Amino acid sequence: MFSEIAKRDIALLTDFYELLMMEGYFNYTKNNEQKEQLVTFDVFYRNNPFSNGFAVFCGLNEIIDYIANLKFTDDDIKYLKDNGTFSDDFLNYLKGFKFTGSLYAFEEGSVINRKEPIIKIVAPISEAQLIESAMLCLFNHETLIATKAYRVCEAAKPCGVMEFGLRRAMSFDAGIYGAKAACIAGCIGTSNVLTAKMYDLPALGTMAHSWIMSFDDELSAFKEFATKYPDMAILLVDTYDTLKSGVPNAIKTFDYMKEKGIKSKKFGIRLDSGDLAYLSKEARKMLDDAGYKDAVICASNDLDEDLIMSLNMQGAKIGLYGVGTKLITGNGSTLGGVYKLSSVYDEDKKEFIPKLKISSNVEKVTNPGNKEVYRIYDNSNKIIADLISFHDEEFDDSEELTIFDPVHTWKKRDLKPGEYKMKKMLSPIFIDGKLVYKRKTVMESKKYFEKELETLYDDNKRLTNPKEIYVDLSQKLYDTKIKLLSDYS
Amino acid sequence: MFSEIAKRDIALLTDFYELLMMEGYFNYTKNNEQKEQLVTFDVFYRNNPFSNGFAVFCGLNEIIDYIANLKFTDDDIKYLKDNGTFSDDFLNYLKGFKFTGSLYAFEEGSVINRKEPIIKIVAPISEAQLIESAMLCLFNHETLIATKAYRVCEAAKPCGVMEFGLRRAMSFDAGIYGAKAACIAGCIGTSNVLTAKMYDLPALGTMAHSWIMSFDDELSAFKEFATKYPDMAILLVDTYDTLKSGVPNAIKTFDYMKEKGIKSKKFGIRLDSGDLAYLSKEARKMLDDAGYKDAVICASNDLDEDLIMSLNMQGAKIGLYGVGTKLITGNGSTLGGVYKLSSVYDEDKKEFIPKLKISSNVEKVTNPGNKEVYRIYDNSNKIIADLISFHDEEFDDSEELTIFDPVHTWKKRDLKPGEYKMKKMLSPIFIDGKLVYKRKTVMESKKYFEKELETLYDDNKRLTNPKEIYVDLSQKLYDTKIKLLSDYS
Repeated sequence: MFSEIAKRDIALLTDFYELLMMEGYFNYTKNNEQKEQLVTFDVFYRNNPFSNGFAVFCGLNEIIDYIANLKFTDDDIKYLKDNGTFSDDFLNYLKGFKFTGSLYAFEEGSVINRKEPIIKIVAPISEAQLIESAMLCLFNHETLIATKAYRVCEAAKPCGVMEFGLRRAMSFDAGIYGAKAACIAGCIGTSNVLTAKMYDLPALGTMAHSWIMSFDDELSAFKEFATKYPDMAILLVDTYDTLKSGVPNAIKTFDYMKEKGIKSKKFGIRLDSGDLAYLSKEARKMLDDAGYKDAVICASNDLDEDLIMSLNMQGAKIGLYGVGTKLITGNGSTLGGVYKLSSVYDEDKKEFIPKLKISSNVEKVTNPGNKEVYRIYDNSNKIIADLISFHDEEFDDSEELTIFDPVHTWKKRDLKPGEYKMKKMLSPIFIDGKLVYKRKTVMESKKYFEKELETLYDDNKRLTNPKEIYVDLSQKLYDTKIKLLSDYS
Repeated sequence: MFSEIAKRDIALLTDFYELLMMEGYFNYTKNNEQKEQLVTFDVFYRNNPFSNGFAVFCGLNEIIDYIANLKFTDDDIKYLKDNGTFSDDFLNYLKGFKFTGSLYAFEEGSVINRKEPIIKIVAPISEAQLIESAMLCLFNHETLIATKAYRVCEAAKPCGVMEFGLRRAMSFDAGIYGAKAACIAGCIGTSNVLTAKMYDLPALGTMAHSWIMSFDDELSAFKEFATKYPDMAILLVDTYDTLKSGVPNAIKTFDYMKEKGIKSKKFGIRLDSGDLAYLSKEARKMLDDAGYKDAVICASNDLDEDLIMSLNMQGAKIGLYGVGTKLITGNGSTLGGVYKLSSVYDEDKKEFIPKLKISSNVEKVTNPGNKEVYRIYDNSNKIIADLISFHDEEFDDSEELTIFDPVHTWKKRDLKPGEYKMKKMLSPIFIDGKLVYKRKTVMESKKYFEKELETLYDDNKRLTNPKEIYVDLSQKLYDTKIKLLSDYS
C-alpha cells in the first residue's frame, strides 16, 4: 500500500540553499541564545494546470513517507563535512535530525484551488526549510498528473482510460507515482506492474508489435496469444495493415476460438496508428458483421483529452483508451506549487505574527498568517466557495456569512443561515513530529475523488474555459493583508 | 559515481504486456521443443525534441544499473502468482532470471540523430522484451532533459547556467537524474544536493525569500548570511522591493563586509521576479557606482532558452542564470523513443533475418536488420552524415563512398578517399550478460559532450530552424528495406 520512498536514503534530496539556511538559523539561534523560531509555511499554487477549473491533490502519502523517514546517514554527514562549508556543531545536529513539527493537509484526491494552502507546516524554521524541495517535488508532480488524468478520463466518459505511460515517464518514480496519481483521478488501471503491485490496482495490457513480428505470420501470432490468454484476447491489429490484414486475422482468431470452444471474458482489438476515427468505424462494421458485437475496440497512439473529444465528435467507435505520453508527462503544462513563509511565532505575545512576501509581480504577493481553509457548500452539497481565514477564527453556520472576492472586493455574497454549511479542509497529518493520520489506500482516494466530483457544478468541470471555484479571504485576514501591504509601501 | 537504481527492487517496473509476451514466448518455445528465438531490438526516436538539430544521449549508466541488477524477489514472484495469470513453470523461470543478452550503445553525452539505433539489444526474445519499458523510460527522460539543457546553456553562453529544478521535477528520480543529464549537457552545477553527492558535481544556491522574511528586516538578513558565508554572498534582493530596498541593502552589506575586512571570493545579487532586463541594468549601475563592478548578477524565474535570448537582446546585465521548471520538466516537448524488433536469428541459416514493421503512418516504418551506425567526418573533424548499415558490412575509407538520402534517394554525395573518415558508434556494453564496458563519470561525459559539440557545424547547432545531420542507409540496407516493403504490399 505504501511507497518505496521510505526505504531510500534521501535526506540530501534537497536544494543546497536549504542546508545553508538551516545552518544559518542554527547559528543565529545559538549565538543569540534563544529558542529556534517556530514558523508556518504554506504549500500552494498560483495557476490551475491545463487551464482546468481546479486541480486534483495527490502526493500526500509519499510526503508522509518522506517526512517520517527523514534521517541523515553517516555517509551523508561525511559528504557534507567534505564539502567544507558546514561546522561540526551543525553536522552533529543533523546526525540526530528528526522532523518534530506539525503538518496539516487536504485529503489525497481532493479538489483544490489556486492560492489556498493545500499543506501547512508548523515547525522550527530549520526543519520547515529542509523539507521544502522534496515536498514540493512530490506535490507538483502527482497533482499535475492527477489533474491531467481527470481531464483525459472526463473526455473519455463513459469509456475507460488505461494508463500506459511508463516508457515515456520522466524517470522511474515519475512512472510509478504518476500511474498512481492517474488511477486516483480516474484511470481504470495501469500497464505499470510495479505500481499495480504497490497499490493493488489492475495491471493492464496485452501485446506489442514485436509479438506479431516474431512469428512467421500475424494469424499465428494472434492464435498463439488468444489460446494462451483467452480472457485478455485484445489483439493488436496494425503491424502490417489494419483493415486488410489485422482485423480479418483477428476475426479468424475469434472464429477459431469459437470453433475450439475457448470461452473469453474479454476480447477485441487494439488500434495503435492511422486514423483512429475511420479505422475504428470500419473495424466496428467488420467485427459486427462477423458476429462479434461484443468485441472491444481499444485505441492508443498519442492520445489526450482534446484528441479523444475530437474522435468522439467524428463518431469513432472506440470502447477503451490507452493513454501514454501526454498523460504521464503532463504534456503542455507544469504545476508551479510554491512554499512560502506565512508567520513567525512570537514567544512573548504567544501568537503567530503574520508575514508577507511582496513582489514586483502582483500575482506573487502571498497570504499572511497561520491559516485554515473552509469549504462552503450549498444545500445541494455543491461548492459555493473556499474561504481562507486565520487558523483560530471561529465561524458559526447558524449565522449570516458575507464572502467577498479578495481582488474585486465589491463582489460580495451574503449567505443566510440554513443556506450553507462549512467544512475545515486541513486535516492534521503530523502533530509535533508524530504521524496522527490514518492513510487512505489508492482505491479509497480514488473513491474520495469520485465523491469530490459530485460537489462540483458543471461549469467547474468543463474542460475548456471552466469557471474556477471562488477562493475568498475572511474579513480579518483581508484587513491584515492590506495593512501589511501598506506598511511596506 | 553510480546511481541508486542498483539498490532498488524494480524488476516489476515493466509493462504488464511484457510479462504476458515473455510467458507467451516461454510457452511457445517449450511446446515446440525449440531453442528460444535470438532477436535484435533497436532503441531509436523519430523526432528531435524542441525542434533541435540533434539530441544529447543520456541515461546509459542508469540503464546499466537497471540491467545488471535485474532480478525478481520472492515478493515479486508471490505477487505474480496471486495475479493468477502465470504458470508455475514460468514463475520458476523468472525466479532465476538474469539478463544473458548483449547490448551496444552510443557513449553517454553523444550527439545523436533521429531514426538511428542509439541502443541495440541482441538477446533471447523474452529477455529483450522484459527490459523494454524501463530502458525506454531512462533513455527518453535523460535524453530529453540533456537536449533541453544544451539549448538553455547554448543560449546563455558565455554565462553559466545552474540547474535549480528539483521542486518542479516530475518526482524524485526526475530531479536526481534530470540534474545529472543537465550537467552533462552544459550546466555548471545543480542545487540538488543528492545529485551533487552521487556524481561529484558542484552543489549551488544561497538563500530563499523565507530567510529574509524570518528576520525583522532585510539588511539584518543579508548581513547575517554574508558574514556566515562570505564566499557565497549572493543576496536575493526581491523580497520587498528590488531597487528601493534589495539592491541598496545588498550594497550596504558589501560595504559592511569591506569595513569589517571580510574577504569574499564570490558575491552579488539574485533577481527572482519583475522585469529581469530592466532590473539587471539598473542594479548593475547601482552596484558599479558603489564600486562593486565584480558583483555577480544572477537571475531566475521561469527562464528558458527563448527568454534568455530575449533578455540578452535587450542588453540585460545578467552574469549567471538559475533555471528550474522549464529545464527539469522538458517543458514544451517530449521524447518519443521506441523499441522495435529488427531481426530474428535463423539457427539453420546462421544469420539474422531482417524484420520490418509497416504502418499506416509512413513515419512509423522501421529499419530492418541487425545494424551498426557509422559516423562520417570530414577533414575538419565535423560530421558529414551518419550511415546505418548491417552490423557485418565492411567499409574501407580508402575507397570512394556514395551516401544518399533514404527518402529522397536522388540526393547523393560521393566521398573521395582522403576526404572522409568513419567511426563505429555502437560500443559493446554487455556481451552475453557480462558488463564489458568501463563507465564514464558524469564529468567525463560532460567533457565528451563538449568535444561532440566541436564536431558540429554552426547550422546544426542553431537553436531555431537548425539543419539536422543526414542519416543515410547503406545500399544493402536500403535494398533490403525496399524489398521487404514490396513483399508486404
